[in-house]
Amino acid sequence: MQKYGGSSVSDAESIKRVAKRIAQTKRAGHDVVVVVSAMGDTTDELIDLAQQVTPLPPQREMDILLTAGERISMSLLAMAINSLGVKAKSFTGQQAGVITDAVHGKARIVDVVPHRIRETIERGQVAIVAGFQGVTQSTNDVTTLGRGGSDTTAVALAAGLDADVCEIYTDVDGIFTADPRIVPSARKIDRITYEEMLEMAASGAKVLALRCVEYGRRYGVPIHVRSSFSGKEGTFVSADAYSAARPADAAAPSPADPPEETVMEDPIISGVAHDRSEAKITVVGVPDVPGTAARIFEVVAGSGVNIDMIVQNVSAARTGLTDISFSLPEGDGPAAMSALSALQGEIGFDSLQFDDQIGKLSLVGAGMKSHPGVSAKLFGALRDAGINIEMISTSEIRISVVTREDSLDDAVRAVHTAFELDAADGEAVVYAGTGR
Amino acid sequence: MQKYGGSSVSDAESIKRVAKRIAQTKRAGHDVVVVVSAMGDTTDELIDLAQQVTPLPPQREMDILLTAGERISMSLLAMAINSLGVKAKSFTGQQAGVITDAVHGKARIVDVVPHRIRETIERGQVAIVAGFQGVTQSTNDVTTLGRGGSDTTAVALAAGLDADVCEIYTDVDGIFTADPRIVPSARKIDRITYEEMLEMAASGAKVLALRCVEYGRRYGVPIHVRSSFSGKEGTFVSADAYSAARPADAAAPSPADPPEETVMEDPIISGVAHDRSEAKITVVGVPDVPGTAARIFEVVAGSGVNIDMIVQNVSAARTGLTDISFSLPEGDGPAAMSALSALQGEIGFDSLQFDDQIGKLSLVGAGMKSHPGVSAKLFGALRDAGINIEMISTSEIRISVVTREDSLDDAVRAVHTAFELDAADGEAVVYAGTGR
Repeated sequence: MQKYGGSSVSDAESIKRVAKRIAQTKRAGHDVVVVVSAMGDTTDELIDLAQQVTPLPPQREMDILLTAGERISMSLLAMAINSLGVKAKSFTGQQAGVITDAVHGKARIVDVVPHRIRETIERGQVAIVAGFQGVTQSTNDVTTLGRGGSDTTAVALAAGLDADVCEIYTDVDGIFTADPRIVPSARKIDRITYEEMLEMAASGAKVLALRCVEYGRRYGVPIHVRSSFSGKEGTFVSADAYSAARPADAAAPSPADPPEETVMEDPIISGVAHDRSEAKITVVGVPDVPGTAARIFEVVAGSGVNIDMIVQNVSAARTGLTDISFSLPEGDGPAAMSALSALQGEIGFDSLQFDDQIGKLSLVGAGMKSHPGVSAKLFGALRDAGINIEMISTSEIRISVVTREDSLDDAVRAVHTAFELDAADGEAVVYAGTGR
Repeated sequence: MQKYGGSSVSDAESIKRVAKRIAQTKRAGHDVVVVVSAMGDTTDELIDLAQQVTPLPPQREMDILLTAGERISMSLLAMAINSLGVKAKSFTGQQAGVITDAVHGKARIVDVVPHRIRETIERGQVAIVAGFQGVTQSTNDVTTLGRGGSDTTAVALAAGLDADVCEIYTDVDGIFTADPRIVPSARKIDRITYEEMLEMAASGAKVLALRCVEYGRRYGVPIHVRSSFSGKEGTFVSADAYSAARPADAAAPSPADPPEETVMEDPIISGVAHDRSEAKITVVGVPDVPGTAARIFEVVAGSGVNIDMIVQNVSAARTGLTDISFSLPEGDGPAAMSALSALQGEIGFDSLQFDDQIGKLSLVGAGMKSHPGVSAKLFGALRDAGINIEMISTSEIRISVVTREDSLDDAVRAVHTAFELDAADGEAVVYAGTGR
């Protein structure tokens, strides 16, 4: 199972390049199923067309429109593979048996029934499947899976077909210990667990979508994130990254397979993720009465907003009052603010503050469970760098802190260095792309 | 039932214009089903992309690629109609129940099972259907119908839904007595029979595809060819054009409905069609022995070539020999020539001549059945214009002659005038488009 994103199939030339890689894999004796996204900017162009027609297109029609993108890339890719003498056929999400619920625009896969894909493989042919799309069982309507949808298609199909590995080809070399645009000495991570990867993705690492990793974990599909440009090994995401052998017959040849015995000990920390897309709302001067905070978060949740971190302080304004701050996706700001405004009469707080100039840094690593002092070291590194911490939250394998947005890059670099994640000289990996 | 071609939906603006017309028709109390082609140049752009990938794409993949075009136009059109407050849903050929055989690239419709379309109409919504495409019953594979495919989809769906009329919207005002680019005084034909329209289409008139008219005749679907720009009445194609009342509830309002009683008598001639796309092959010096001609046409037909007209003359070269000429589509020339060359040893003819500088003029009219002297008048008109006739063929309602290609325009004008088809002063119809 291989998946190629839009940047890997941006024009006829890159489609031919990808076709060559697929033909090689097939000729090496592997069964190959390929999930492909729309070409380069196609999706944006289609959205733009829709906007020219109407500002509020029905989501059902939007899904039909957008799925034209994969239709183009998948048929072109199948043509290119055929022209190399390897038989290939393309399939829509519907034809591939990707069954979803009816939530247009962000449907969830409810079942994968890949009869035709299995048939195609059994005939010795390559199956190309449109990513990002599915079909409802009851009405036979076309749906799209939303952000990260093509990755999710790939992992779901890999699970449905019992594939050895799901290779996600992208424009970077794998998952890095930090964003190499911020930390030039960031290292590629060779192996990582689903849990760590989930925390990284939830904390702003953009290479793999959260739901794709969730799907992989649920069905135990090993995911290999790698570059469609370099051909090098990337990052393996699996249940037990450090002891499990890498899948015996992963689809691509790997001359540079790192010897297993070099991994002497679990690394404590996998990497440092960051996220600029959150904002902070502070409810100032809330009467310090039992149930008030609960009411506030009840109302915010009721407006469809996902709250991330919460801090409650004694109010600087007056005694007997507290300030409650929470972070949330920036785009949810207006909904949360208006829900809270409506609550002012009932609760009687002083005012609301909205702050989108925050940044979140997250340190992720399964090893921190068994290593005390990780948070102390993190706070120390930030203090030494002169960076103020505004909020803190932790899970078993993650510590997140909120800082000012303009000190986030410095914070990431400081923490990356403090936890000895920097690559040694000469070890640095060339970072190929933009991180999408 | 309305059908809009690519030039009617070439960009966001024209899609909005078409949406407005559909919404008006719906608001006037009619059930509306719309068949739509791909936007403007989309199909050509997709073909170009495929060519960049491989010179010989598999036809199955080509069909998947091309059907992306209607997917885009149909969803955009549905969005535009919804934004005018009229509920509309778009459907692929598969969803609309257009079942075809498995001949990719030029599939034929074998059945239409429009459950979902009927459901949509019954809910009071507008159904938008992708033209040009269908699905195979056995394998659920996407097919395209080839040239004139969207018109055929429209007529087939109109038949399947028992629609009152199938309106084909195009960039010209209807069917004309001759191509107005050649004969500026050509008149729009108000009514024409399926048989006449078939002869016109087979003789080079390009507004309606042959198979679409055939389908209409077989299932008795009245076809109204009209302009998507002017809103004027166009040409009605039906079983009996002159006595049948026009459909009582044709889908669009028609202030300028011509009074029936002005049609005093069947016109003898419907129009003059022309065709520059044929070529002529002459087999020179064929031994005048029984069975030789049969053998020649057997071989040509065996190479997949459609022969149109045949002439056999005593050879000018030598006595005891004849020259056999036949016309055929220019594109079939190479196949026919190589098949004939291989036959030279067997039959012993002198040489082969290929001539693509011919033009064909066809006079079409159901009235000529009962009016003797039509061919005499035709030949006289051409003689008076100094035009030489090279081949002749006739059907009950058509006379075709082959001339030199460079005198074809003069021939069309001379015949158009001789049969009094020219519009009177002030009656001339503005010709809106390019005839496609």
